[in-house]
Amino acid sequence: MGIFTKDIHTLEDLFAHQLKDIYYAEHRITKALPTMVGKATSPALKRGFETHLAETENQIKRLDEVFKMLGIKAEAVTCQAIDGIIKEAEEVAGEVADKDVLDAGLLAAAQAVEHYEIARYGTLVAWAKRLGHAGAATLFEKNLEEEKATDKKLTELAGSEVNRKAA
Amino acid sequence: MGIFTKDIHTLEDLFAHQLKDIYYAEHRITKALPTMVGKATSPALKRGFETHLAETENQIKRLDEVFKMLGIKAEAVTCQAIDGIIKEAEEVAGEVADKDVLDAGLLAAAQAVEHYEIARYGTLVAWAKRLGHAGAATLFEKNLEEEKATDKKLTELAGSEVNRKAA
Repeated sequence: MGIFTKDIHTLEDLFAHQLKDIYYAEHRITKALPTMVGKATSPALKRGFETHLAETENQIKRLDEVFKMLGIKAEAVTCQAIDGIIKEAEEVAGEVADKDVLDAGLLAAAQAVEHYEIARYGTLVAWAKRLGHAGAATLFEKNLEEEKATDKKLTELAGSEVNRKAA
Repeated sequence: MGIFTKDIHTLEDLFAHQLKDIYYAEHRITKALPTMVGKATSPALKRGFETHLAETENQIKRLDEVFKMLGIKAEAVTCQAIDGIIKEAEEVAGEVADKDVLDAGLLAAAQAVEHYEIARYGTLVAWAKRLGHAGAATLFEKNLEEEKATDKKLTELAGSEVNRKAA
């Protein structure tokens, strides 16, 4: 998209832009997760991040499928939102001295990432349906359900272990 | 918080940091919403943003109350996450030529903001409870429920009007 030009004319254009934005975000997340695995102390949290990395790689494959299905070139556009969320997580992580408190911070950061994705996939499902892209909507729904399940698992892990140890 | 220093030692420190982060985010949102009201075309969407602005101002008052309650100085720490989410929204909005498509984009951006807040208040409720700050937890829960309700209203508005007009 050009800067200072109005390149988005239709919902189809906006949809394609949003698809490329989440494509960037998912790739950005696959780069951030190994660092989070390395920093986490709780074995359950480490495993959670590892599982989500495998899931994210699979979600990217679904996005590749959507690009192919719709004849859109698979490319990423910089997503300042996910960059900001991850930068903030890295900054906070860098300031935490205690390993259990760091786990609580990493878990919270992961939930902020999950919620960003939940918002975006929710929008993509709605737009895909409205535009008659039923196949794409089904693939986005799969990613959306995985993100929601991950968020729920993180909430459970926070309650059962991570926040208790940090307190 | 100092850069390159480990200033966060306890969950109480991390909690205070997160409180200052959402305090920044809510103030940032009160600055962004009037612009969104100005850009929106759908009267229902305009009204939705106006209502949420009044709600956000009230949410800030609740945060002020939490700071007072816990004897923490009410101050904001830069929240790169919300900065990124809003910057991205402004950039995309600047690229949209059609007013109905712009409404769909503004609504989607608002849902990304809501989900960021849902993630953060969810964490703050959990940490406040764990740390024995029951009064703070109740205030965060009020904000959390409002954010969830706003997100739901936006989903309904997308389905009933905004996405239909944009398509």
